[in-house]
Amino acid sequence: MKLLSYRTSDGESWGALVDGEIVDLATANPGWASLAAALAAALADAGTDGIVRAVTARAGTAPRLALDSVTLLPVVPAPGKILCVGLNFEKHRIETGRERTEHPVIFTRFPDTFVGHGTPLVRPAESERFDFEGELALVIGRGGRRIARENALSHIAGVTCLNDGSIRDFQAHTHQFTPGKNFPATGSIGPWLVTLDDIGEIADLELVTRLNGVEVQRAPLSDLTYSIPEIVAYCSSWTQLRPGDVIATGTPGGIGARREPPLWMRPGDLCEVEVSGVGVLRNTITTEDVTP
Amino acid sequence: MKLLSYRTSDGESWGALVDGEIVDLATANPGWASLAAALAAALADAGTDGIVRAVTARAGTAPRLALDSVTLLPVVPAPGKILCVGLNFEKHRIETGRERTEHPVIFTRFPDTFVGHGTPLVRPAESERFDFEGELALVIGRGGRRIARENALSHIAGVTCLNDGSIRDFQAHTHQFTPGKNFPATGSIGPWLVTLDDIGEIADLELVTRLNGVEVQRAPLSDLTYSIPEIVAYCSSWTQLRPGDVIATGTPGGIGARREPPLWMRPGDLCEVEVSGVGVLRNTITTEDVTP
Repeated sequence: MKLLSYRTSDGESWGALVDGEIVDLATANPGWASLAAALAAALADAGTDGIVRAVTARAGTAPRLALDSVTLLPVVPAPGKILCVGLNFEKHRIETGRERTEHPVIFTRFPDTFVGHGTPLVRPAESERFDFEGELALVIGRGGRRIARENALSHIAGVTCLNDGSIRDFQAHTHQFTPGKNFPATGSIGPWLVTLDDIGEIADLELVTRLNGVEVQRAPLSDLTYSIPEIVAYCSSWTQLRPGDVIATGTPGGIGARREPPLWMRPGDLCEVEVSGVGVLRNTITTEDVTP
Repeated sequence: MKLLSYRTSDGESWGALVDGEIVDLATANPGWASLAAALAAALADAGTDGIVRAVTARAGTAPRLALDSVTLLPVVPAPGKILCVGLNFEKHRIETGRERTEHPVIFTRFPDTFVGHGTPLVRPAESERFDFEGELALVIGRGGRRIARENALSHIAGVTCLNDGSIRDFQAHTHQFTPGKNFPATGSIGPWLVTLDDIGEIADLELVTRLNGVEVQRAPLSDLTYSIPEIVAYCSSWTQLRPGDVIATGTPGGIGARREPPLWMRPGDLCEVEVSGVGVLRNTITTEDVTP
């Protein structure tokens, strides 16, 4: 099942994609004001497929609207936590010249750094070093702390595509990545969440990033250094995961910063992140009309 | 003026401390459900002292309650952004063995990592390396992006004390600090916000940390490597600051991890962070009854 968040002239909502149409699940469903709220409500006792059963039960009578009549938002518009795994593909780790670590590298992004599918990414006035990072992202369905690896999948509602767009000079200002990963509207999440029951083995998925139609990154998810269960177990060892939290699982080799010459995203470009079985996240690049 | 957030059996609220009593400012003030909301409402057009004028105008008829009848919460219970400056006192930078950087070092904490004054800090079951970090914290009053240094103070509602409690082994898992800075309830903010009009020069303030009554850190705020205006200007160059956002400005030398032998906070301990002219933030240390 595909779930998505969107905005219309009536405000923000969310729903399921059924037969190419959006089934509006917020209207007339008290307590389901957002996808995160619905995940919390439906998954509290029902396990991972609880949301699918609950949505199916309510979808029949829900209002429908055309996919192209809405603005898609990040799958979860305002996650409580966005955790990002860095350097989680060997080829990318090697291209950055960093040592392998004994634990996943974790940094964070704020929700306002993301837009949805179809909304332009913003190259800030402060830098021209705007780089792509195609990734698979997890959305937490059932919260938890100290989640064992063998239980990790039961806490994941589904997966989506994510562009961890990065301002490389700011990322390298110091040893902490925060500034380069947190410019507004430099990343994207979407177009939709595919619930885990519709995904076979995550390790069988393939991740591809294209810039202006040219493939710039490709890797199977089986190449992740730290697997999905290892990531969930590690993060939940030090933080409480909650419904709607997002975990970006890392980008493959091929980033623009490590090419000769470097390949930056520029105004007018189109960046696409595709995960097989999930969809294609498309964003053009725009710039700002401000003096930094 | 001292502003604080608190919980009673009726729920969460916030108010001003007047003559040793809490003046409840949420009840009967629509749009002032939280301190962050009030800052946003009162400071939108009124400048930094807008909140003081607005609070004063409403304080006369507001309900009052005894300070010791409430549980204090972090000054802003759920800030949109918590930015922390690392290595911002030379003595601390030197004790960690790190190179000086050309920009402030910025990492982030999630809101659930903080408790208020008087609520125990939690040493997690995963580690015994629980360290103190006394700091001065800023609370943003008026939001902004690309704030010039000379305008920075006009965006700050006030200051408070902060304990950036850290789990050192997890902080050192990789080059990114995130895990060690984000265990639940390992830090504290409070007891209250002192609005900037009641603070003279921030550089004239003194910061002291005590563990079980023994002084372990002391520094004047004039020793900050990056000054308050430089920090606000830098952070707002890459992120939008909003009312209620918190910026922790860095800890002085003397942390437990760099002592011989190391000095860790243990269950039953009392940690105090005092900023002259602001107050004393006191938290005991407790532990968890769980198997990690």
